[in-house]
Amino acid sequence: MAARIGALEAGGTKMVLAVGTADGTIEEQVSMPTVEPDRVVPEMAKWFAEREVDAIGIGAFGPTIVNPNNPDFGKTCFTPKPGWSYFDFLGTMRAGYNVPMGYDTDVNVACLGEATFGCAKGLDSVCYFTIGTGIGAGVMVGGQLLHGMLHPEAGHILLTKLPNDPGTSTCPKHDRCFEGLAAGPSIKARWGASGSELADRNEVWELEADYIAQACEIYVTCYSPEKIIIGGGVAHQEQIFPLIRKKFLAYLNDYLKTPELEDIDNYIVPNSLNEKQGILGCIELGRRALEA
Amino acid sequence: MAARIGALEAGGTKMVLAVGTADGTIEEQVSMPTVEPDRVVPEMAKWFAEREVDAIGIGAFGPTIVNPNNPDFGKTCFTPKPGWSYFDFLGTMRAGYNVPMGYDTDVNVACLGEATFGCAKGLDSVCYFTIGTGIGAGVMVGGQLLHGMLHPEAGHILLTKLPNDPGTSTCPKHDRCFEGLAAGPSIKARWGASGSELADRNEVWELEADYIAQACEIYVTCYSPEKIIIGGGVAHQEQIFPLIRKKFLAYLNDYLKTPELEDIDNYIVPNSLNEKQGILGCIELGRRALEA
Repeated sequence: MAARIGALEAGGTKMVLAVGTADGTIEEQVSMPTVEPDRVVPEMAKWFAEREVDAIGIGAFGPTIVNPNNPDFGKTCFTPKPGWSYFDFLGTMRAGYNVPMGYDTDVNVACLGEATFGCAKGLDSVCYFTIGTGIGAGVMVGGQLLHGMLHPEAGHILLTKLPNDPGTSTCPKHDRCFEGLAAGPSIKARWGASGSELADRNEVWELEADYIAQACEIYVTCYSPEKIIIGGGVAHQEQIFPLIRKKFLAYLNDYLKTPELEDIDNYIVPNSLNEKQGILGCIELGRRALEA
Repeated sequence: MAARIGALEAGGTKMVLAVGTADGTIEEQVSMPTVEPDRVVPEMAKWFAEREVDAIGIGAFGPTIVNPNNPDFGKTCFTPKPGWSYFDFLGTMRAGYNVPMGYDTDVNVACLGEATFGCAKGLDSVCYFTIGTGIGAGVMVGGQLLHGMLHPEAGHILLTKLPNDPGTSTCPKHDRCFEGLAAGPSIKARWGASGSELADRNEVWELEADYIAQACEIYVTCYSPEKIIIGGGVAHQEQIFPLIRKKFLAYLNDYLKTPELEDIDNYIVPNSLNEKQGILGCIELGRRALEA
């Protein structure tokens, strides 16, 4: 019988829990609000225990310690969410139900989902980023998810603020980082409405596409990915993709010539998998934990 | 008897050839001018054959194909150097002397040298960049050198040009990339003299340190390295390091808190190994090829 894999996508607002198999089939899925960890984490462990899963893959909101060699592996870092700072997430899950567990960031796991089941299937160097309340990036390099000192925080790369931008950065730390200039709250602060209400306003998407294109230029020269995948609310604004590609190519200005860049429409793409890239990445992470 | 490892640091101006052992001892070293590949490459293969080395590690100037899964692995890409475009460097070496060979970029190999024998010994996530005629970056992620679609070209990340910068980018492709704003030729074009002649001019190093700090902010958020190492001529201007660290911390603005960043004087550092990081990295690359 195929192993039953638990998947836990731990977001700042809600927890998504699922049970599935290594082929990417989801058999059951529920969600719970992200209340204090002392309450919700044991409850989640119990949920998986009742379903007798053989392993669990966890994709957690950051910042958190994802390097298995770090003695604090599986703990969260400082976060404004009540109770969640410096919490032993992985240890508390294991105390409730002790099976092999994989643990990584929500965006690394979404990248893994796309590389295993989605539009990046078969590739081993992939950059995934999501634009929503914030901007987070997950990166696969040579088949491994990127960790390091901490994990990528590539939503906070510094960009050049455009002179015609009527807004200011909404990041409390950086006056011109990608997140501060291009995440959902900055769109709302700049134009007085959310992205979905501004779909027909060209100037909104020209500016947004420029910041995304600057970020893509940096990701391509830094990571040399075989594909760049964009998730989050912006990925639903399909009219923005041709703008992003055009501005990205203008910024790169033929500096690099590769078959992937020649096929730009398949190089910078929206997420696939119908918003299941995260939970499916958790399945794959759990499968890898079981195998290891 | 210890294996004899050949090391070849293939630069745009000269080729450095050495024979050593896996512990980092160099027994013999010579250099040859980088003339057309049809002449110099067979000559180099012969040099290694005469010394009966057991393996060779090659660090080549880019752009070049360094991903072993690519059918063009070991070939160069377009370059203005006569004869060197689309040249089968690795294949020609092998035709002359067939032993196990590793092949990577000059900067990836320098990064490997620092991670094996130098100031990053024992770390597995390291960012090395060199500022000279150009700016190139070598990156180790989880113990592997970063490849991907091609390899990092992180000297060409876009930065924000400072309003008080009296110069213009010297990169023919980008009006505000790191290389165009901060490599040796841009210093010379902006101030009318080379960096070594401008050591006592504060405004030169304030500006240079700012661009380097912007780049470090991007590298830290993208790669999450455990250490950043700066090589090339700029690393000899030791007065610049305190400026770089201060400006980098200001740009990052406490967004990330890690033990490594707390110890900033040991986080952003000049290269070690007395300019032998490249050739010693070739030794390690050769050792790995022999082992594989």
